[in-house]
Amino acid sequence: MGLGVGLIGSGYMGKCHALAWTSVATVFGDVERPRLLALADATEELAQRQGRAFGFARATGDWRDLLSDPAIDVISIAAPNQFHAEMAVAALEAGKHVWCEKPMATSLADAERMTQAARRSGRIAILGYNYIQNPMIRLARAIIAEGRIGTVNHIRLEMDEDYMADAAEPFYWKSEKTSGYGALDDFAVHPLSLLSVLHGRIAEVAADMAKPYQTRPTREGGTRTVENHDISSALFRTEEGASGVLMVNRSAWGRKGRIALQIYGSEGSILFDQERMNELQLYTTADPGGLQGFRTVLAAPVHRPYDRFIPAPGHGLGFNELKAIECRELLAAIEGAPAHVITFEEGLRIERTVHAMAASALAREWVPVG
Amino acid sequence: MGLGVGLIGSGYMGKCHALAWTSVATVFGDVERPRLLALADATEELAQRQGRAFGFARATGDWRDLLSDPAIDVISIAAPNQFHAEMAVAALEAGKHVWCEKPMATSLADAERMTQAARRSGRIAILGYNYIQNPMIRLARAIIAEGRIGTVNHIRLEMDEDYMADAAEPFYWKSEKTSGYGALDDFAVHPLSLLSVLHGRIAEVAADMAKPYQTRPTREGGTRTVENHDISSALFRTEEGASGVLMVNRSAWGRKGRIALQIYGSEGSILFDQERMNELQLYTTADPGGLQGFRTVLAAPVHRPYDRFIPAPGHGLGFNELKAIECRELLAAIEGAPAHVITFEEGLRIERTVHAMAASALAREWVPVG
Amino acid sequence: MGLGVGLIGSGYMGKCHALAWTSVATVFGDVERPRLLALADATEELAQRQGRAFGFARATGDWRDLLSDPAIDVISIAAPNQFHAEMAVAALEAGKHVWCEKPMATSLADAERMTQAARRSGRIAILGYNYIQNPMIRLARAIIAEGRIGTVNHIRLEMDEDYMADAAEPFYWKSEKTSGYGALDDFAVHPLSLLSVLHGRIAEVAADMAKPYQTRPTREGGTRTVENHDISSALFRTEEGASGVLMVNRSAWGRKGRIALQIYGSEGSILFDQERMNELQLYTTADPGGLQGFRTVLAAPVHRPYDRFIPAPGHGLGFNELKAIECRELLAAIEGAPAHVITFEEGLRIERTVHAMAASALAREWVPVG
Amino acid sequence: MGLGVGLIGSGYMGKCHALAWTSVATVFGDVERPRLLALADATEELAQRQGRAFGFARATGDWRDLLSDPAIDVISIAAPNQFHAEMAVAALEAGKHVWCEKPMATSLADAERMTQAARRSGRIAILGYNYIQNPMIRLARAIIAEGRIGTVNHIRLEMDEDYMADAAEPFYWKSEKTSGYGALDDFAVHPLSLLSVLHGRIAEVAADMAKPYQTRPTREGGTRTVENHDISSALFRTEEGASGVLMVNRSAWGRKGRIALQIYGSEGSILFDQERMNELQLYTTADPGGLQGFRTVLAAPVHRPYDRFIPAPGHGLGFNELKAIECRELLAAIEGAPAHVITFEEGLRIERTVHAMAASALAREWVPVG
Repeated sequence: MGLGVGLIGSGYMGKCHALAWTSVATVFGDVERPRLLALADATEELAQRQGRAFGFARATGDWRDLLSDPAIDVISIAAPNQFHAEMAVAALEAGKHVWCEKPMATSLADAERMTQAARRSGRIAILGYNYIQNPMIRLARAIIAEGRIGTVNHIRLEMDEDYMADAAEPFYWKSEKTSGYGALDDFAVHPLSLLSVLHGRIAEVAADMAKPYQTRPTREGGTRTVENHDISSALFRTEEGASGVLMVNRSAWGRKGRIALQIYGSEGSILFDQERMNELQLYTTADPGGLQGFRTVLAAPVHRPYDRFIPAPGHGLGFNELKAIECRELLAAIEGAPAHVITFEEGLRIERTVHAMAASALAREWVPVG
Repeated sequence: MGLGVGLIGSGYMGKCHALAWTSVATVFGDVERPRLLALADATEELAQRQGRAFGFARATGDWRDLLSDPAIDVISIAAPNQFHAEMAVAALEAGKHVWCEKPMATSLADAERMTQAARRSGRIAILGYNYIQNPMIRLARAIIAEGRIGTVNHIRLEMDEDYMADAAEPFYWKSEKTSGYGALDDFAVHPLSLLSVLHGRIAEVAADMAKPYQTRPTREGGTRTVENHDISSALFRTEEGASGVLMVNRSAWGRKGRIALQIYGSEGSILFDQERMNELQLYTTADPGGLQGFRTVLAAPVHRPYDRFIPAPGHGLGFNELKAIECRELLAAIEGAPAHVITFEEGLRIERTVHAMAASALAREWVPVG
Repeated sequence: MGLGVGLIGSGYMGKCHALAWTSVATVFGDVERPRLLALADATEELAQRQGRAFGFARATGDWRDLLSDPAIDVISIAAPNQFHAEMAVAALEAGKHVWCEKPMATSLADAERMTQAARRSGRIAILGYNYIQNPMIRLARAIIAEGRIGTVNHIRLEMDEDYMADAAEPFYWKSEKTSGYGALDDFAVHPLSLLSVLHGRIAEVAADMAKPYQTRPTREGGTRTVENHDISSALFRTEEGASGVLMVNRSAWGRKGRIALQIYGSEGSILFDQERMNELQLYTTADPGGLQGFRTVLAAPVHRPYDRFIPAPGHGLGFNELKAIECRELLAAIEGAPAHVITFEEGLRIERTVHAMAASALAREWVPVG
Repeated sequence: MGLGVGLIGSGYMGKCHALAWTSVATVFGDVERPRLLALADATEELAQRQGRAFGFARATGDWRDLLSDPAIDVISIAAPNQFHAEMAVAALEAGKHVWCEKPMATSLADAERMTQAARRSGRIAILGYNYIQNPMIRLARAIIAEGRIGTVNHIRLEMDEDYMADAAEPFYWKSEKTSGYGALDDFAVHPLSLLSVLHGRIAEVAADMAKPYQTRPTREGGTRTVENHDISSALFRTEEGASGVLMVNRSAWGRKGRIALQIYGSEGSILFDQERMNELQLYTTADPGGLQGFRTVLAAPVHRPYDRFIPAPGHGLGFNELKAIECRELLAAIEGAPAHVITFEEGLRIERTVHAMAASALAREWVPVG
């Protein structure tokens, strides 16, 4: 019998988890079909409506109901960020495995608390860094691991979207200081999760945070000072000895879901852009002279687990489908098998890096990642 | 209560249908969750195994079992092509709606029989031409309908893959005459389905069919003459007055899932390639002089129903997800609402076009599409 | 002492020849600097003005003056197409080498007359098919010759621009029957020249010619029937056994200088587009499995004679610079060395192919190339 | 009568100047043909050979000969970098206009001396920053000036090549400290020249310099410590209020002539890459909703002075041809007309920025540009 699943939150990420839980057995065929037992959301009514659509057996307006249900083995947390810590800690303490959406928490202290709870619980606790599940990212990892680009010596990471690019957009909570640093928490964690699986860890940073717009109009007709930073950039050095630059911008007109990687090694290079997530570009000095160039490798069955979705190359996975892969990895972890996931432990490291960047930007100096 | 669903076939396309039936309510939220009642496959054992993985209530080794189950409202046919006609006709006669994979049938006579059965039954009968469900194709249709590229006057359609490109690959049934014309049935129907929703119908054709390899090695160490054509090309004129070229090649090294469209009009042009299925390129003379150029529009929530999958632009749908959209359209058709589908009627027209191309290639002359 | 040069015509192509003659010694460094002796154009005044700008020693309003000048060894013909035959024949009869712009002539009879004159003269007579001089085209040729894509079995050639795309553009001579078939003579000769150096010769064709606009407005406020065809497409088979399609369109919005080649072989493929003339894309099955893909090779010094222009890779040659390479090849031919050129002989073959296409379009049947 | 020209240096950049001087009148048709009077190089013999190839009237092994020739109005300096200052100052003091290749000088003191000499002389003194002459860069400037992307708020500049990427390449002078900082002087000046014409000046920087390889093999079989940095990155703020990042890497496998610009504004964005120098990408919020995207504008006659080279769009200029445009601008400056050039004055500012970056990297802190 498949694992019993509880889901907290039925917004977009909740839907994404529901799709993953629903499709994981169909796609992979090698796991017991999870049982969608209970959906929790802010109100009973919302939970009932969404639970019915998502195919959950029951629904509740109180997420704590899930903790006491012994049939529930694992809890997906897709609630607003400020609740992540409380929910994750409670779920772990209740003996549930936890699959928590990123960002991990809204404070470093919370992230630490979550990590400790995970450690104590002996349960699996992972974060929803689904970009790492892209078969093209796994391919990049394999290319690097096989030494095909030699020793990595320079890395550039960019993540850009344009949802804050419109200066005429009225001030809302995203520009409030209480929502965080800005682009740094919204975005930086994603390329950092990729860096974590592709290369290693950042040792020190020198960062800058900038505001494209100092103020924004209010809905009431006034203006209000923007309190955080839509743009951030950081020079960095990794523990493995590479230099690099991390750039994030949530007001970059024309960028929609860009996560662009440039990874340079002593014998080749890798390029990737999430906006073309089914492609990876490889340059290798192993190619014949005069015929070298970046080649575009299209996602194909040979790039596991693409094959579980589609038996033909070049047909393309979608963003949501990465979540089904993540779900399969979570199940592997629960089974005690090796799994390709970002644990709370590693997630905490990512959070520390982000906070070091913010500290560096404020102090205007290089800051080590604690 | 949601519709009762039966599925015949649990290979790749069967899995694709199962995923669609499983996720359609979760994704769209505006339909009752379909009930996956029965899966049929060639053997009881296979059916049981897959039925369990896919989440069907029961499974059977005899597809005819589905016909007599009054709880089943709609039957998905994802069995080998040679069974499509028999199954579809039987299902329609049993009062079921039918969702049949392409190609429609292995003979024109069968396709006609299926169309007549659909007409007689009063049931919904559609074909699995999922490429038309891509929000980017819908966008292309809207762009044309709004007159943004003026009157379409020239069209180039290419579909290319490389699964028959390896000359060393031993002869197998795909190269047998009994499997069909070759690239013409394998591929041509897809761009023709796109042409059908984007522009109109082909009136006459002048085609060629070619063999990249005259013979292939056999597994026994001999050679065998290839009996059909991996490459085909056709000049055409449409009823709407455009000229065009259709090109298909299943031995085109490097092409994996290419369906490339070039649509030229009196005020602009549209380019599309299924290998980058979340992009569409538009050139319009409405852009300022000196600043005109093809612009790459990334799939976004504004391109319905992308929004039901992902609320953020540029994150990308996958090939499989098109099937969920197709499923939602089928449900709309069953509800009596306007639906964006290829009916058996229109599918028959596509089949006739393919047969006219083959006839033209053999006669080496222009042939009208009957 | 360098060759004595006469140039007829000082419009764009005349300027292009002048630049080539002026720069060939500077670029290559291995030829004597040609002496720019005389420029002829329609009027004395025009010739004087342009001759001064171009650096010619003298200028004349009568092109026949060049024939009688014993110091002139070679004559560049960049006059309007209808004069090519008369000028080339006269120049050859006067013992001059001839470098004549394409298209060769406005009738097949004229092209034949020119070819005979060349044969009789014993002089070098080449046509200005400069696209073949692109180092990337030479690279494509080398790739094919080295067997890197195996046996070529399918070819698609497209040439598209949009200078006739504006339906509101008043009728002018380009739409008159007397100016030729339309896109067929304007464009088809270019991809055919590339086919000639990359693969071989077309044996038979089945073509179509189409009009995007049946009429055009006149400057006087009326309308006039368009007399030739802005679009043409042709299926073909080559003497070497490949199938293919040639497509040309001079009313293709958004296309500016597109000459797109797709060359498929038994072990790989080559893509090229003149709009990105410093790139070539190669797919080869020699690449490791799971890492195959089209790779973009950037023009580099190793791709001769790029090195004579720039010692660093990826910096890019321009369209005009191809003419300097053509000039160097012409000088090689005159010296009796092997040269990469389209002779009048080969040019005549290209003309015959174009005429066979037009004949096929009119007869609506396959036509062999005579 | 055209200006009298002297050229010092006949290596690649010397050839590039020679081509520019030879073709400028032919291309533009609106200037008197310059007279190529004298070529100087390190030895008489070399100068004689190259002078003959380049079409100079005379040649000399002593560059000072050019200073005393009253017929020479302007001197092109394409000699090794360490001689720039001495030659430029001497030429200016001799009353010649000066066209000096970049980098300006090998020390800041020299650059200052050159700037003072230029100021004192009243002559035109410009630097060979030819990338700014690209019609696409001019288009970018016009787009920004017209407000089409609103207020620029973020800029990313990358320049990457791979000529130092091979770790097996023996140590040579490029890795010696005396040759400069490394990538910073080799490359950073180029994107900075573009920034100068597109946006403004950098006010402060926080930079890092890195070595991909700590040592290199020597030709003698040993190893030697690399003394400068093949990689550098810098955060910056501009006087105009934008934030940005500058990244340069001369050991970036696969990059050949990349100068990639990302310019983000409040109403749109511009992308450019020198490896595709005939294209510019523009995203503007003025495009209709649902149809926005980066559009690729191909170089065309409307983008002056492309029209002087080619009357048809999309045919492509080459890197060398930018030098002819630069030559025309120099002639304009000499005529007293407005000219699009980098003067010694502005060049000094660029040098200061580079030195501030190096200082920042050493001090590991933000440094203002003096």
